[in-house]
Amino acid sequence: MREPHGLQQSAQELVATAADVLERVRGRSPRVHCITNSVAQAFTANVLLALGARPSMTLSGEEIGAFVAASDALLVNLGTFDAERRAATETALDAAEDEGLPWVLDPVLIDRSPMRAAYAKALLVRAPQAVRLNGSEFAALAGAAPEPGAVQHAAREASTVIGLTGKVDLVTDGTRLVTLENGDALMDRVTGMGCVASALVAACLAVEGDALAASVAALLGLGISGEVAAERANGPGSFAAAILDALHRLDRETLIARARVQ
Amino acid sequence: MREPHGLQQSAQELVATAADVLERVRGRSPRVHCITNSVAQAFTANVLLALGARPSMTLSGEEIGAFVAASDALLVNLGTFDAERRAATETALDAAEDEGLPWVLDPVLIDRSPMRAAYAKALLVRAPQAVRLNGSEFAALAGAAPEPGAVQHAAREASTVIGLTGKVDLVTDGTRLVTLENGDALMDRVTGMGCVASALVAACLAVEGDALAASVAALLGLGISGEVAAERANGPGSFAAAILDALHRLDRETLIARARVQ
Amino acid sequence: MREPHGLQQSAQELVATAADVLERVRGRSPRVHCITNSVAQAFTANVLLALGARPSMTLSGEEIGAFVAASDALLVNLGTFDAERRAATETALDAAEDEGLPWVLDPVLIDRSPMRAAYAKALLVRAPQAVRLNGSEFAALAGAAPEPGAVQHAAREASTVIGLTGKVDLVTDGTRLVTLENGDALMDRVTGMGCVASALVAACLAVEGDALAASVAALLGLGISGEVAAERANGPGSFAAAILDALHRLDRETLIARARVQ
Repeated sequence: MREPHGLQQSAQELVATAADVLERVRGRSPRVHCITNSVAQAFTANVLLALGARPSMTLSGEEIGAFVAASDALLVNLGTFDAERRAATETALDAAEDEGLPWVLDPVLIDRSPMRAAYAKALLVRAPQAVRLNGSEFAALAGAAPEPGAVQHAAREASTVIGLTGKVDLVTDGTRLVTLENGDALMDRVTGMGCVASALVAACLAVEGDALAASVAALLGLGISGEVAAERANGPGSFAAAILDALHRLDRETLIARARVQ
Repeated sequence: MREPHGLQQSAQELVATAADVLERVRGRSPRVHCITNSVAQAFTANVLLALGARPSMTLSGEEIGAFVAASDALLVNLGTFDAERRAATETALDAAEDEGLPWVLDPVLIDRSPMRAAYAKALLVRAPQAVRLNGSEFAALAGAAPEPGAVQHAAREASTVIGLTGKVDLVTDGTRLVTLENGDALMDRVTGMGCVASALVAACLAVEGDALAASVAALLGLGISGEVAAERANGPGSFAAAILDALHRLDRETLIARARVQ
Repeated sequence: MREPHGLQQSAQELVATAADVLERVRGRSPRVHCITNSVAQAFTANVLLALGARPSMTLSGEEIGAFVAASDALLVNLGTFDAERRAATETALDAAEDEGLPWVLDPVLIDRSPMRAAYAKALLVRAPQAVRLNGSEFAALAGAAPEPGAVQHAAREASTVIGLTGKVDLVTDGTRLVTLENGDALMDRVTGMGCVASALVAACLAVEGDALAASVAALLGLGISGEVAAERANGPGSFAAAILDALHRLDRETLIARARVQ
């Protein structure tokens, strides 16, 4: 993907694959179990439903194993940090490993809490198929500025795919490096937008074995839906509703016409 | 309700009663205490407020008894399952029994968790005035396919009213059987729509002693509001806002004109 | 502020200061840590983001100290009441005191629970810069009807600013007494609107040392946004989205043109 020509071709292929992945989510309605914080739960569930996936959200240690075992992918979002939640996460990861389920790590706000950062590093060892985070969280996780080279290095070290979201999104498996330029500034004015991006990565991993392709599909779908929503919105309140509408209606034509992928 | 003529008459009466019940909710603003999962809490509170009821939601075992004792109805939604929540539920049910309060059981996702299903069965023995569930949950609760005869049998056995929601809703007290055909497919794309239906049943039970009439009023009001909302919506995000608007504005004329009850 | 002329002048100055305070929030993006109930969390976070503040919401005792220490203001909302939450609140208040952070007390529904009321009284001793509550909550806190004189007396006794919201809002530091007449009846039909008002007070306290001016700015900004939103809304669902849009777009001209302050 270093050659201009090859890169352009790859970008087209990636977008076509992203469209395939999103269609597969709609067609198969994968079950995605979400360990996530209470602030983001409802919006996350609604985003998954809008794309055609089926969310579940219980955090109870007594039953989370059964829920995860019957799911197609798992999200581990660290937006809340306590002993009970960590125990439930252990149980959930054990179940995911037993079933060979893909899972996504979202190390929310680890830059604000050293204990949470340490926990995120411990979870990284358990080999998530993908990690989704922002620049500050990357810096806290990897101990390096969120530059393309450092992100590639961190992905290679952890044998995972990293999706770093911001004004421009970077997705890398340590070898391939994709940049996505879709999105809108209003996405930063709705709580849980990052959490939601990670949940969509999990939904895409449920139907796509290539974690880079799954991450690109999720972030591209969300970014383009954000652009469509911004054209209809008067501010962050109407935008939050409109991005759900846009995700629900997102089709291959819109995805291909709007994608800004390199 | 077997004779075509009698059935038609009954349907008209049921719709008129439903309109009365919904007007009574608006007029009396009953207090409804909701034990429900964190995913559905905000949407449930907003739906109750839109219809004119007053929600409260604390789950703290230390004070839930005082909240329930001062309420007019109680919702027990099993969307979260842990020891602390079960203890609070016990306290809440004791208070409801002491005060002679009606309550509704919503056995959310018991088809996904055997422990939760066992707990739902134990709660059924405590005689809820109404149960609201979907087909998969009914099968897990009753051990039978969600056919009209099996639902009637289960309601009779448990001496309760069952509201089984799906493409067509069934409401039965074991003797009478009502079918409701209102609603819209977008209702399945908004998280907590079933939880919200159960909360509305609780609000209607607060002002109507006939649990069948209360359940019909709640499910009919929600289904028709869903139809009205779908006509204004571009997808599930705008639909979730529009169904609150429609519930808030729902009047007797709209209810009677749109009801598809048998 | 008893003389008609002086009052009018003061009102103009208060509105100009309110506009300054809201601009400062947008310009500085203060971090506001919120201890609040799960029903109100997402809406509270979205309201803070709409105004330009940066919310955090963790309730974990293990890390709340670190979050508060790096924040610019703290909200303590009593919408949930349990031993774990109270322990986290202690830790958070210790951190706020260490850092000299302003904090707001919102004694949600203390009229419904004697234990919660007792806890609110104990917290009042820890000297919040501001308290935001409604009439019933004031009566439970102060043991007096929510009349202007009683509210002034209570503020003086507790050396705090009280913002009493209702059809008309009163804000007083015990000496000055301001009344705000902006707002819309739909604000009562959206869950968490009071909680959100308190969070906005915290955001304004982060950038304004005069707690009366900060409280007026927050309640005026919210009330006027409610009026703007009501003009676009069809009911409480579209209103909840529209008030976020209006807060996001609220400018000095609109604030000055619409303010009804005395």
